[in-house]
Parts: sequence; C-alpha cells; structure tokens
Amino acid sequence: MAIFSKPFRVYFSPDKLFHESLHNILGFYPGNIALYKLAFRHSSASQTIKKGVKDSNERLEFLGDSVIGTVVADYLFKKFPFKDEGFLTKMRSKMVSRAKHNQLAIKLGLNKYMEVNNSRFKNQPGSINGDAYEALIGAIYLDKGYKFAQDFILTRIINVHIDMEEVETKEIDFKSKFIEWVQKEKKEFRFDIIADAGTSADKLYVIQLVVENEIAGTAQHFSKKRAEQLAAEQACGVLGI
Amino acid sequence: MAIFSKPFRVYFSPDKLFHESLHNILGFYPGNIALYKLAFRHSSASQTIKKGVKDSNERLEFLGDSVIGTVVADYLFKKFPFKDEGFLTKMRSKMVSRAKHNQLAIKLGLNKYMEVNNSRFKNQPGSINGDAYEALIGAIYLDKGYKFAQDFILTRIINVHIDMEEVETKEIDFKSKFIEWVQKEKKEFRFDIIADAGTSADKLYVIQLVVENEIAGTAQHFSKKRAEQLAAEQACGVLGI
Repeated sequence: MAIFSKPFRVYFSPDKLFHESLHNILGFYPGNIALYKLAFRHSSASQTIKKGVKDSNERLEFLGDSVIGTVVADYLFKKFPFKDEGFLTKMRSKMVSRAKHNQLAIKLGLNKYMEVNNSRFKNQPGSINGDAYEALIGAIYLDKGYKFAQDFILTRIINVHIDMEEVETKEIDFKSKFIEWVQKEKKEFRFDIIADAGTSADKLYVIQLVVENEIAGTAQHFSKKRAEQLAAEQACGVLGI
Repeated sequence: MAIFSKPFRVYFSPDKLFHESLHNILGFYPGNIALYKLAFRHSSASQTIKKGVKDSNERLEFLGDSVIGTVVADYLFKKFPFKDEGFLTKMRSKMVSRAKHNQLAIKLGLNKYMEVNNSRFKNQPGSINGDAYEALIGAIYLDKGYKFAQDFILTRIINVHIDMEEVETKEIDFKSKFIEWVQKEKKEFRFDIIADAGTSADKLYVIQLVVENEIAGTAQHFSKKRAEQLAAEQACGVLGI
C-alpha cells in the first residue's frame, strides 16, 4: 500500500467525514468514494435504479465474496505446502463462513456506517454486517485492484483478526451454536425428520430445522446426527448466526 | 501481457518442447515451468511426497478454480451493470461449470499434455481435463500474478471460446444431457424416488439417480421434475459429462 498521505480531494469533499472513517478502517484513503457508499447500503435502504436492479450492496457482495475466496485460497496454498486440497477447502470454508464475516464486520466497526431501513423487518438479519464486509472488499477490488484488496485482507484481517490455530483445530459444532442462539433469542425450534428412506442399514434421513414455524434449514444424510448438523449449519447461514 | 519474445532460458531448457507447447496455448512463455508440469499431472500419475499429500494437480486446481470464479465475477459485474446478483450468480455458474471447463480444456488442447496413469481406472473420468484447466490457471496465477491470469482468461478464453449470448439464453437441461450420455455410453440408469414427504400440496421429493447400480446423484425438491434435474446435474458433475 503506497498512499498514506491525505489526497487533496479529501479536504474539499462533502464526504470528508466518511473519507476519514474509511481511512481509519482501511488504512488508506479510498479513491472512488461512491463505491464505498454503495458497499454500506443494505437493500432495505436502496432504491430501484432500473427495472430489476437496486442501488444496494448486493452486486458488490457477489464480487467481494469471490475475491475473499481467492485471497484466502492463495494464503492457505502458501501457508500449508504439504496439505492436500481437502484440507485447504475445509480451512477456507471455516475462514469465510457467514458467521466469520459477521464477526469481522463488527470488529472492523462496519456496523456503524450501515445504511439500513429497519422499518422493513421485525428483526434486523444478523448477516447484514457480514454482507457489507464482503461488499467492502468488492469496492476495494474495483477501486484499487486485486493486489490492494489482497494486501488489505492479509494485513488488516487475517494477520490481526483470525486465529489460525483456532481455525485449524476447531470443528464447528453448528448444532450447539444454533441452540445457544435460539436460547438467547428465546425462539422456538424443532428438528423434524420429514423422511427416512432406505433399509435400516442404509437409511437416508431428510431433516428440516424449523424456527418459529419457518423452515430455516433442510439437509439429508445417512447419519441422523450429521443431517442435523448440516441443517443447523444452513440455519446459521440463513439467520446470520 | 508484455513478454512475447523468447526468453534465453528456453533455448537451453531440457523442457524446451514443453515450453514451446505452452507458449502456443498460453500466448506467453512460462516462468516457473515446474508449476505447469504439476498442473498437468493427474493424481493417478502422482507420487506421495509427504504423508497425506501427492505431487498432483489437485492443490493447484483448488486455487485456480477460485481465481477463475473471481475473474468471471469481475467480468460479469462490468458487462451487466444493470443486472442483479441473482443473475450474475446464475451466469457465473453456467460459465464455470465442470462441463464447460472440460470443453475448454479440449479446445485449448490440454488433453495432449496430461500425465495420467490410465491403468488406475476402468474409464478415464471425463473431468480430468477440466481439472487440469483449473490447475493451469492456478499455475499462471502463481507464476505471473492475478492480472496476468485475468488477461489470459479474458483474451484467450472468454473472448474466444465462450458464446455469451448462448450462456445467457440457454437453460442447461441436465437431464437430457445426462440421458444423451448414458445412451452413448450404453449404461443402465434409473431415477429412484427414495422419499416423498409432506402433504400432496407440499410434497418434498428425494430422488436418487442410479447409474450402473451406483448412486451418481441425490437431490430433493418440491417439484419432482426439478429434483430430477438437480440429481442429473450432480451426476453430470460426478461423471464429468
């Protein structure tokens, strides 16, 4: 990262404060400020700019999510030269999970800058912040290029906020995590076995996780426990846990 | 891409021929030739270099797959400024499907350079070439950087080999594609409904696609047709169709 001194345009920008806030978060002054504004705009606060498309952060999120995946893949590839692709895939999915991105967003303080219209939902979805984190990476990538986005993720995210030892050793127990959450939130839930097919030796379970009478996850597996874990993982994603 | 003239090292390399072949495919001379050799080595022809890891192209494939995803995301983001992320996601999944990568690999002629030990399987899996394509992108990324890999994908792949109009308009009918393949290969198959749960208005079908008595795909959907399509899509992936 080369640009640490304050560019002239910042002094005269109507978005001077936002520029400074971003500088604190990112460690550099953004170029195209409009991209960063977009990154913080949840669809609830967006307007339709053309049939079928809104000026929300969802497109940037699509792009940023992919950039993060590649940067993390590269990081893992080099950090673990003697691990196979199964290990790398598993590590990455733990590092880029929705839950992880929500955490990171809060740690970076992104939630303070969100444009959200809270009247649009009963409870603000927990994934809003994680989505903004992904969109922010998309904005950096478009504004400054891949190398810059990569440097940001390595130096300001992975090196500072991710405990690789924990990622490596910890198996995520989504069912426990989910149950912890529903208890805290005082919500009703149940795991329904909606189908079990096959012989007793080779039975496929289809399990639905229902939260407050809405389906939050469906999964199938030959092991009932595993199917529950998978359904809970899905629910954690959907509910932004 | 800047380097078009032949670097000195190529004249004296024991891999001179491989250098030239790669030059024809890539449009540039590779730097670290070992990476490219690795990209063409299927696990059947690999050796265990350390407990749990082989000198096959699988790690490179993991990396390259992600790089392709990001380059295509960027391409679509810019090409379709007024389409939402749902559209972009769908387009990308068509552009980076296993089937597409297999086709591209053949078009680039990568199959001629594969290191495969055919004695290891009855029929060579069709996905071998697509996997090598992904690994090759991983090799370019490591050897020359993101920008270079991006240029390669844009100028030598998307602009030349991908008909975007076709991608946009064509819904992939995986079931037809699958049936075409089994008929050509003279294999037996059947779609088994292994479970249908719920009321008649809201019935969830779990469908298994069985090829030569082995499960090639399992999927569930409230529409039976859709469940079959999804199972066929999975089978196309597994069987490299």
